[in-house]
Amino acid sequence: MSMDQLRRRLGQISDLKAAAGLLSWDQETYMPPEAGEIRGQQMATLAGLAHELFTDAQTAALLDGAHPQDDTDGAVLRVTRRDHDKATKLPTEFVEEYTRACSDAHHAWVEARQNSDFKVFQPHLQRVLDLTRRKAELRDPDAHPYDVLMDDYEPGMHATQVQAVFDDLRERTRPLLRRIVAAGNAADYSVLTRPFPAGAQKAFAWQVAGEAFGLQPDFARQDESAHPFQTNFSRSDIRITTRVEDYWPACLFGTWHETGHAMYERGVAAHWARTPVSSGTSLGVHESQSRMFENLLARSLPFWERYFPELERVAPEVTRGLDPQALYRAVNRVNPSLIRVEADEVTYNFHVMLRFALEMRLLDGSLKVADLPEAWNAQMQEDLGLTPPDDAQGVLQDIHWSAGLIGYFPTYTLGNLLSVQLLEAAQRDPAIAAGVQAAEYGPLREWLVQHVHRHGRSRTPEELTVQATGRPLTADPYVAYLHAKYEDIYNLK
Amino acid sequence: MSMDQLRRRLGQISDLKAAAGLLSWDQETYMPPEAGEIRGQQMATLAGLAHELFTDAQTAALLDGAHPQDDTDGAVLRVTRRDHDKATKLPTEFVEEYTRACSDAHHAWVEARQNSDFKVFQPHLQRVLDLTRRKAELRDPDAHPYDVLMDDYEPGMHATQVQAVFDDLRERTRPLLRRIVAAGNAADYSVLTRPFPAGAQKAFAWQVAGEAFGLQPDFARQDESAHPFQTNFSRSDIRITTRVEDYWPACLFGTWHETGHAMYERGVAAHWARTPVSSGTSLGVHESQSRMFENLLARSLPFWERYFPELERVAPEVTRGLDPQALYRAVNRVNPSLIRVEADEVTYNFHVMLRFALEMRLLDGSLKVADLPEAWNAQMQEDLGLTPPDDAQGVLQDIHWSAGLIGYFPTYTLGNLLSVQLLEAAQRDPAIAAGVQAAEYGPLREWLVQHVHRHGRSRTPEELTVQATGRPLTADPYVAYLHAKYEDIYNLK
Repeated sequence: MSMDQLRRRLGQISDLKAAAGLLSWDQETYMPPEAGEIRGQQMATLAGLAHELFTDAQTAALLDGAHPQDDTDGAVLRVTRRDHDKATKLPTEFVEEYTRACSDAHHAWVEARQNSDFKVFQPHLQRVLDLTRRKAELRDPDAHPYDVLMDDYEPGMHATQVQAVFDDLRERTRPLLRRIVAAGNAADYSVLTRPFPAGAQKAFAWQVAGEAFGLQPDFARQDESAHPFQTNFSRSDIRITTRVEDYWPACLFGTWHETGHAMYERGVAAHWARTPVSSGTSLGVHESQSRMFENLLARSLPFWERYFPELERVAPEVTRGLDPQALYRAVNRVNPSLIRVEADEVTYNFHVMLRFALEMRLLDGSLKVADLPEAWNAQMQEDLGLTPPDDAQGVLQDIHWSAGLIGYFPTYTLGNLLSVQLLEAAQRDPAIAAGVQAAEYGPLREWLVQHVHRHGRSRTPEELTVQATGRPLTADPYVAYLHAKYEDIYNLK
Repeated sequence: MSMDQLRRRLGQISDLKAAAGLLSWDQETYMPPEAGEIRGQQMATLAGLAHELFTDAQTAALLDGAHPQDDTDGAVLRVTRRDHDKATKLPTEFVEEYTRACSDAHHAWVEARQNSDFKVFQPHLQRVLDLTRRKAELRDPDAHPYDVLMDDYEPGMHATQVQAVFDDLRERTRPLLRRIVAAGNAADYSVLTRPFPAGAQKAFAWQVAGEAFGLQPDFARQDESAHPFQTNFSRSDIRITTRVEDYWPACLFGTWHETGHAMYERGVAAHWARTPVSSGTSLGVHESQSRMFENLLARSLPFWERYFPELERVAPEVTRGLDPQALYRAVNRVNPSLIRVEADEVTYNFHVMLRFALEMRLLDGSLKVADLPEAWNAQMQEDLGLTPPDDAQGVLQDIHWSAGLIGYFPTYTLGNLLSVQLLEAAQRDPAIAAGVQAAEYGPLREWLVQHVHRHGRSRTPEELTVQATGRPLTADPYVAYLHAKYEDIYNLK
């Protein structure tokens, strides 16, 4: 009985969050521009009400009095209590102020990025940073603020661990990157900007998302937005967005990336619907799914051997004079570049490590917001030998900080590492390995549902990793994968 | 101080309703089909929470303690108290059950209409009807249930008044309709189904909505849905939908109809934002705005003299061999037909009067839901000499009953009557009359903002009518307008 009452309350809170999610999706896709200010207020109200309901005396009493009948209930209680402990440390007024600040910062960021004018964004980022520091302090004044913030995205992970993994990864991939750049035998990159009509890009990406990866219009849809994202308002209502550019891989691989996120949310067991268990367990694990689809599968040779003919049909100007092998080499070009979301598998993690280093310094005060563009550009020059010509292609490129997402970036690289570790474990089953070699991903997707998706948040990232792969997260499989793939593509043996 | 607190609370409730509105808009436009069930739950939760916040002890205390500082506050208090008195009569559980029943009924109606199968809809309509009767009883067990229900749509109006106006109207328009049909000199209707590409229909309708009627993409957008509607989540975020058909006037005049609703919401004074005053004062007054744009303006000769060249440019197949006068005659064809939303100005009100008569009988129990299709068809035969070939073109054509909107239909005809009464009053200003004759509606729109739009719900429909036109609502101007316009078009003098 009390469990039913708790479930009912959690359902209401989940519904409020779903509505807030739709307000946000709509803001990015269809909302008329004048509506921005009041939309921020609406989102703040819903976030505030959800927080109020979740943290009030009634929810606390329901949590204290609830008796789980089975493992499903047990997970709901465990996860909800963890969230509740965190949430009760933040006053409603703070949550509303924070949400409003992020909404304002978002609009400023859109304008700043459009005009490549960091000054427009700077005071908003300062406000978000101050509130984020305050958030960490309210939660746990004794812990390192980065650990406290990161716990929202990657529960249980510490900045010192991240630092150690990143140092290791940097050391082992830098030489590979240097050898690739020195080889000077890259594929013809101009293929990647050959004419590919916008409608055809979106349609091809969406069709393959369905055929290869299982994303169906019965429960999902595709729209356009400035920055691609996945969101969902239930496991039966999943939205991905894409962006169409002359550089057509942005749309294709971006769509398949979001499809990985989407299928994770789709795969969570239905008995956890409208509870806090019903979503991915961490952003790192989430990213392992999106990167697996985007990179390990869609940037593989078997994938293009299978989908090349269809690409030829819808975009003959793109494939003219090419075969699957040539296309495979082109979409795996390694090219130190300015934009994270367009970076290849070898350079991508340098973008993430840069952001992690800057966030650490912003939080400990050794870097001022006003000096951020300069620091960004210096690190970019050191890592990849490049300096952004303007801030739009530098410090203003990501949406994250405008949304208060500090401590979030490391999860991208943690996800990259985990994606290979999971795929390696899955392919111990010969049927799955054979499927991957034939670009038939049904058996792999079934394995992912069983070992990753269906558990939702009932397993922590570390539990999930150990139970699915037999060991904790390590960079070894990823480093080995990079060497095998790129030594072959670039003839480095 | 207490007024500020009240305002803050009303703002929260308004934000919840805006979010619920977006959930509903999304359901009609973009939502994946599998999401229907949980979406119903989400909308029920938000409606329930909004109702709970509005009716709880804190809101009651704020209302009791509030001291208005000015007329703006005064209107907020007056309108909020009126709503509060009504709302406190409905328990939260009832509101949630009612919302869920309507959501279920909506899905059943979509399916029933698709397959023209009334049986699919019948149990849902029965449930909605039972709950609607219960709603009327909870509100005021002594009043006629129709009066209680209609008060939500047309505050202050009584079924006996409606009956009297409708009897009068029927008596005075029936002979005109007979003379028109007997004249046998109608324009060539095939013009109305000439090829007009879907994209061009939508684009032309939207462009004219902006140019002629002031609906701008800064604060509004156009999408597609099965049944066209207007909704808004603030006066800076207005959505209209349209439906594209071979019969192209459905898209064009439908868009301009919704534009009338949109501009009313847009015109409400900004100082009432996020309060209950911030919307149109009744559906009848709302309809006077939509019908004015759709019929009195967009179906006038000066309008087509102005916009014919543009139509010629975007749809040359439609205008081939025509001049503005011929097009004017075609879009004003009088043709007794089965579908209300496609009906002309002379027959339209018969559709409404039919629904009013059936609703009265459903409510007093003299008509059973199971016998509704038969009763519909018999009345249709009597009024317009037609019998629907199936229920999709008969009793299943409207969305309203599936949404619990009983007592709503009369507002369409009340709006028709008021539209002419208002336009007549506005044109006492020679500059406005000259503008209307040149299809330059700027001066008229300014008059509408001053005399209708800006007041929001601060004036009752009757107050507004008397203050804007100098007298209470009467059918006389409408009947005179119909006679003048159609005796000319059909050479009946």
